[in-house]
Amino acid sequence: MTHFVITAGGTAEMIDGVRKLTNVSTGRLGWECLDAVIARCKSHNWVDIEIHYILTETAYYRQLEEEEAHFVHFYRVTDNQSVYNTVNHLTKKYKIDYFIHCMAISDFTFDYAISKKSLVKQIWELSQSENYSLVELEKLFDNSTVKLEKQTKISSKNDIFISLKRTPKVISLVKKNNPKTCLIGFKLLKNVSENELKQQAIRLIQENGCDYVFANELSTISMNQKHTGILMCNNEIISRPRGKKEIARALVEQIIK
Amino acid sequence: MTHFVITAGGTAEMIDGVRKLTNVSTGRLGWECLDAVIARCKSHNWVDIEIHYILTETAYYRQLEEEEAHFVHFYRVTDNQSVYNTVNHLTKKYKIDYFIHCMAISDFTFDYAISKKSLVKQIWELSQSENYSLVELEKLFDNSTVKLEKQTKISSKNDIFISLKRTPKVISLVKKNNPKTCLIGFKLLKNVSENELKQQAIRLIQENGCDYVFANELSTISMNQKHTGILMCNNEIISRPRGKKEIARALVEQIIK
Repeated sequence: MTHFVITAGGTAEMIDGVRKLTNVSTGRLGWECLDAVIARCKSHNWVDIEIHYILTETAYYRQLEEEEAHFVHFYRVTDNQSVYNTVNHLTKKYKIDYFIHCMAISDFTFDYAISKKSLVKQIWELSQSENYSLVELEKLFDNSTVKLEKQTKISSKNDIFISLKRTPKVISLVKKNNPKTCLIGFKLLKNVSENELKQQAIRLIQENGCDYVFANELSTISMNQKHTGILMCNNEIISRPRGKKEIARALVEQIIK
Repeated sequence: MTHFVITAGGTAEMIDGVRKLTNVSTGRLGWECLDAVIARCKSHNWVDIEIHYILTETAYYRQLEEEEAHFVHFYRVTDNQSVYNTVNHLTKKYKIDYFIHCMAISDFTFDYAISKKSLVKQIWELSQSENYSLVELEKLFDNSTVKLEKQTKISSKNDIFISLKRTPKVISLVKKNNPKTCLIGFKLLKNVSENELKQQAIRLIQENGCDYVFANELSTISMNQKHTGILMCNNEIISRPRGKKEIARALVEQIIK
């Protein structure tokens, strides 16, 4: 049995039950990867495969043909934590052969919200007190120390600050739970040169043990045909596919020879 | 000619080109209102109508039947500012008879992002300087004063603060541009009693000159059949419709007698 995991779409971090922090990902590239994996396995006459497709609420989805559907298990996720739990579970339960990690996962999750007015007041009071120090100032910003307004939904009467804390990196789980998994990472940057894209892709390869990275720049992804980027392996650019379908095909042809 | 405006879906405020601030609105209630207006006008044999339907990127949408489609103009919007501009334009250009304002518009827009580390450092340095005062401390938080990291996409290396500033209230434009428009406002709250819902609805009526307000509590809206709330007119509850279709029908039957 050959196991694939594909992740797709953008996560959403809840702020106050109504508002949320999310991103521009549509899940289309992930779906193209699913199509490409199915097509490639068919052309190799692989039938002993299982594809675990992890997708967010807003990610593109369509009903599969019956003969394709029985290869694919869908896992619906919402925020960073739910992706983390799902990936941790799957990578421990199955010997994953290929992990295609398209999903745009929030690097931050909601910590707290506070009106600017209240925050300034608390800083001012602390700075006028006897035990004012840099350490006390740093502590003031902790969720457990700062005095938050009791509120059910954030009031729109004042300008506010939202404190965001970093989330654990889901991608780091893949090789930790199974060093033999072939891992494909993705990197999206904005307003950077190709050299900078390449450097960041190399960093992703080194930090998380990616076997391949597809790195792209924001301005190219909005139009389907224009979407382009660099496919990297062993710190070298091996391909420059253009269009989401082509990107997915190039990736999958690399991993399933 | 009778002009309707219906707004639907949730706006998205861009943070750094990749991340965005949005909300849970799906645009389904707005679409039910569109269906209900069309049905009601048909049953009254009104043919001289124009419906201006303003919807966000993620709002529910389906192709209309041809005989319905020629009554409806669609306007695609993204963030608060684009809704504001569209509503201002339409309410000045046409004598709007009915304005059904379902859309969940962000009360805040992105101001700036800063790492917690850098913000604490700047506050500490200011507090150690000679010209430290409450006024200077307040000023430090202004977009134009705080020292921001030069960045293309917010780095995920540090915990961050996001400063959000209030946006102009779109709903206030409706009666300002045409006091004769019949205005239906919506209020979504979380974890509040019916009495608190009622008080907030009355405030919305008074502040913006709403003729009707539908007020609802978050926990009831997730399931279509369960979605319920109170329909208010002149500070009184006139109906408690249940289910999105029923809510839309109750609203539209009130305004088109």
